[in-house]
Amino acid sequence: MDRPRFVIEASEAESMAKKSGLTVVQLLPSLVKSAQGLARVPISKFHVGAIGYGSSGRIFFGVNLEFPGLPLHYSVHAEQFLVTNLSIQSEPRLDYVAVSAAPCGHCRQFFQEIRGAQDIKILITSAEPGDNNDGSCGQFSPLLQLLPHRFGPGDLLGEDVPLVLEQHNNGLSFSNKSETFSNKSPTFSNDLIKAALEAANKSHAPYSLCPSGVAILDSEGKIYKGWYMESAAYNPSMGPVRAALVNYIVSGGVGYDKIVAAVLVEKEVALVKQEQTARLLLQTISPKVEFRVFHCK
Amino acid sequence: MDRPRFVIEASEAESMAKKSGLTVVQLLPSLVKSAQGLARVPISKFHVGAIGYGSSGRIFFGVNLEFPGLPLHYSVHAEQFLVTNLSIQSEPRLDYVAVSAAPCGHCRQFFQEIRGAQDIKILITSAEPGDNNDGSCGQFSPLLQLLPHRFGPGDLLGEDVPLVLEQHNNGLSFSNKSETFSNKSPTFSNDLIKAALEAANKSHAPYSLCPSGVAILDSEGKIYKGWYMESAAYNPSMGPVRAALVNYIVSGGVGYDKIVAAVLVEKEVALVKQEQTARLLLQTISPKVEFRVFHCK
Ligand SMILES: [Zn+2]
Ligand SMILES: [Zn+2]
Repeated sequence: MDRPRFVIEASEAESMAKKSGLTVVQLLPSLVKSAQGLARVPISKFHVGAIGYGSSGRIFFGVNLEFPGLPLHYSVHAEQFLVTNLSIQSEPRLDYVAVSAAPCGHCRQFFQEIRGAQDIKILITSAEPGDNNDGSCGQFSPLLQLLPHRFGPGDLLGEDVPLVLEQHNNGLSFSNKSETFSNKSPTFSNDLIKAALEAANKSHAPYSLCPSGVAILDSEGKIYKGWYMESAAYNPSMGPVRAALVNYIVSGGVGYDKIVAAVLVEKEVALVKQEQTARLLLQTISPKVEFRVFHCK
Repeated sequence: MDRPRFVIEASEAESMAKKSGLTVVQLLPSLVKSAQGLARVPISKFHVGAIGYGSSGRIFFGVNLEFPGLPLHYSVHAEQFLVTNLSIQSEPRLDYVAVSAAPCGHCRQFFQEIRGAQDIKILITSAEPGDNNDGSCGQFSPLLQLLPHRFGPGDLLGEDVPLVLEQHNNGLSFSNKSETFSNKSPTFSNDLIKAALEAANKSHAPYSLCPSGVAILDSEGKIYKGWYMESAAYNPSMGPVRAALVNYIVSGGVGYDKIVAAVLVEKEVALVKQEQTARLLLQTISPKVEFRVFHCK
């Protein structure tokens, strides 16, 4: 069996579309079902798939994730997975999304962290004729129509502050460099610790100014980074462990029990701290995981 | 100084309106500022106030709460506080809401747990002329306009399942009754433990079927109940400790450090478990709190 894919390169997307006599945008809805099949939903059994088309011409997949044994706010929605996937792949813009169910308010809000979010075109594949007052069923409509009078970054930030999908460099370094790298643990290699700092430097945390990043290590020695992405509305923010899990899945990771270690980098004195929640999520999905926190400034 | 109030009785609301030559609905926007003053927002300093008008004629206040040292998804938005306040007061219906800022997507989603949510009339007091395409600035507009093509309870539940603000009785009892009440701790009185079970029996958890309830005890011996309220979209769900904290504040509680003990009641084997998150939140806001969990079936 082929490894499930979460990114389709531009050239392949073009040739897939051509074969079907479609444009790439017209192709997107037909991929939603295959994304749904990749959802990991042991609680709801409600498979959501979201297919995104980026400005580079690449196609991105998003699926929902649920974590039994924890409160539901640890869940990752397909649209949030999708945005995280784009961020991991350094995609500069999201133009179109085809999704299997009406995006919930939480996801409509999280999308607002992307510049020009109101113009992202959304198509709901399960929508039935008549669902749209304007007769737009089966068509892409701007996100603005799904979240009018939005609350968003514009209410809190200056125009020049980078948003999600824009380049971040938070300029963080370790609070105590010699101590950080003095450990001789074979699990917590310098590479793993550096990867977590790199992730923290890409974190989008303009509201709290408390960026954070995570690097997870699997049993084959591979490292997966994830960075915290904040929402202007706070609660829909995407935590760094969940972002790293998206990276793990996008990169072909299957069982969470293959995750053997994780490093979190965040500020020591901070209004928003991920440490305890990160540990809780990691230990729930992979009880033997070793977890360490290093502080940055 | 008067104790801040979070509920205004119907008769008083009527006479306040009459004095100003207004209807009660017209009075609501003028109360938003005083609600904003009651917000507890050490992270954002962004004070949100929401004023609700219930079908009983009572007026309800909602404010936002933030908890330093934790991830942002522990925050309580003013609209969620408002709905929790109505639920605590057994108010059957929410008809009008005046709120200081555009409700975020997370809150528009949480409102969907109320039957007929699309018809709740919303007025945003900070909206400026021209914010609304339809020229409705300064007017109440149905929630449907803020969250069209909604995802909600109707997508997952039968019509006969009770929603938030409707009566719940989950028929829960303790898994091990004699053991539960055998403890002779003066802190964990039978009253406190029973209050947590009563709360769990009012919990709205139709999606996961994992209800839960919390009772917190303050240093004066007063007990405050809170029940878990689930969202069809999972992440916006309101946890039981946060609900109990709303009750504490609504009842005049000031410092969280006055909270000395808390009991959580939930199922032992469950897909959704609040225990560790509840402990984390409680210990963060009141380090000396004693916390116990009892299981129900
Ligand atoms: Zn969603
Ligand atoms: Zn909100």
